[in-house]
Amino acid sequence: MFQRVAIIGLGLIGGSIGLALHKVKIAQEVVGYDLGSGVTERACRVGAIDATYEALTDVVRGAELVVLATPVGSMRAILQGIAPAVMPGTIVTDVASTKEQVIQWAEELLPTSVTFVGGHPMAGKELSGVEAADAELFQGHIYCITPTEHTRPTATSKVAALVESMGARVRFLSPVEHDRQVAGVSHLPFLASIALVNTVVESPSWGEAALLAANGFRDMSRLAAGSPAMYRDICLTNSEAIVGWLDDYIATLQSLREHVAERDRDLNELFVDAQQARLRWQATHERMK
Amino acid sequence: MFQRVAIIGLGLIGGSIGLALHKVKIAQEVVGYDLGSGVTERACRVGAIDATYEALTDVVRGAELVVLATPVGSMRAILQGIAPAVMPGTIVTDVASTKEQVIQWAEELLPTSVTFVGGHPMAGKELSGVEAADAELFQGHIYCITPTEHTRPTATSKVAALVESMGARVRFLSPVEHDRQVAGVSHLPFLASIALVNTVVESPSWGEAALLAANGFRDMSRLAAGSPAMYRDICLTNSEAIVGWLDDYIATLQSLREHVAERDRDLNELFVDAQQARLRWQATHERMK
Repeated sequence: MFQRVAIIGLGLIGGSIGLALHKVKIAQEVVGYDLGSGVTERACRVGAIDATYEALTDVVRGAELVVLATPVGSMRAILQGIAPAVMPGTIVTDVASTKEQVIQWAEELLPTSVTFVGGHPMAGKELSGVEAADAELFQGHIYCITPTEHTRPTATSKVAALVESMGARVRFLSPVEHDRQVAGVSHLPFLASIALVNTVVESPSWGEAALLAANGFRDMSRLAAGSPAMYRDICLTNSEAIVGWLDDYIATLQSLREHVAERDRDLNELFVDAQQARLRWQATHERMK
Repeated sequence: MFQRVAIIGLGLIGGSIGLALHKVKIAQEVVGYDLGSGVTERACRVGAIDATYEALTDVVRGAELVVLATPVGSMRAILQGIAPAVMPGTIVTDVASTKEQVIQWAEELLPTSVTFVGGHPMAGKELSGVEAADAELFQGHIYCITPTEHTRPTATSKVAALVESMGARVRFLSPVEHDRQVAGVSHLPFLASIALVNTVVESPSWGEAALLAANGFRDMSRLAAGSPAMYRDICLTNSEAIVGWLDDYIATLQSLREHVAERDRDLNELFVDAQQARLRWQATHERMK
């Protein structure tokens, strides 16, 4: 049980955490902060937070738990902003998609009396903003927690208990391992989608070909419509892992290209491998839901 | 109006053509042929065909229009099989995903008294088989017709009229141009999906990372679950165009890789380009429906 929790950034994730905290009654008071025009008022109205403050330092003052739910690109400035005001013993956690860089900033900028516990909920929806917030958003989804050797174990346990109370399933892993794994299953996919769109639209026949594009293109291009700013922040903070995956992907494509160029009937095996792997993943994924 | 239409291959597409022909009453009799166990019986039962024959030569005998709706891989053998039995003046059309190779086989194997008109309906669904057949499958969708200098214009017109009667929108283009365009918007996407799956599952951490894979991975891997035999046939019959697109895709990825490695903030522009192009395509695509 927390006396006071502060949520910085009241979008879909921050707002949903606020609603979930109220639902499970794990905090006496939830206060919030957001720079967006009218966002804090709307967050109060939907019941995600109980009160709001104009200044970043005021919102974290007296909070035992601070949740950073802003875009990764503003995380460093937020950490600098709250550092002078957080109480000794406070736990600070975040929900950013990349962990190593954020944790490095946190350990560099926050007072040593404060513990930072990196977190990353594997949940989301097409809609964004506090209006789309949902107390059940994390229900059944994996929520990564990425402690380091500097993270106090009691702080890690408290964050894990909070995450479980929201219905999510905790997975502990190191920041490096987290970043490498999400680079493969989340960052590589959006870059593959963006590259696909940019490749086909640059062709002189795109105007005509666009009319022939159907469900396959629709699925493979959907991620390209995502937020450019979010994608850029992810690439800037997880560059090394992403480059490794892009190199692997390019090598796989290059090998596929040779098989196609040679009209190699063994292409079938590569296609069967992919089909089986996808079907296995899908079965596990659906069972997990 | 046709006295008799023969459909070879009674899967989703062949079956749907049979149902559509009955619905618009454009053929007096529709006969069908399929090698699959019990398929012709089921096609009769759902009303896709009126009668069936054991031998390929019998089913095309007396038909003014023959529709080839088998996988591309069996097309050459089918053309050889029907060649001795088709009447002079018969129109033969197909629904294969690649056109140049199929048309070359047709022009080489069919008697000169017969006209081949290449076709490709841009419609489909997740389900396959005659049970999933639907008279409305082509409604509003583009249906490519790819005449060559050897195609009699009256035959092209008759096939176009048939296609329009099924509610589809005819688009005429050359076989080469068709193959190049679908290679970009349809074949490159499935290869990108297959390569993505094969890249990430080969990693030693896949067992763990699979648990973190969410909606982005789901969309980008969906095509990889498609039919390996169909994908192989497409690659074997459209190798040149596909290799060209794979080279362009690899070059785009390579350039993206350099931007990510340099932590280049201009990545944003590439992401905005892709986002805008995807949103424009989506708006047109939805308007077309």
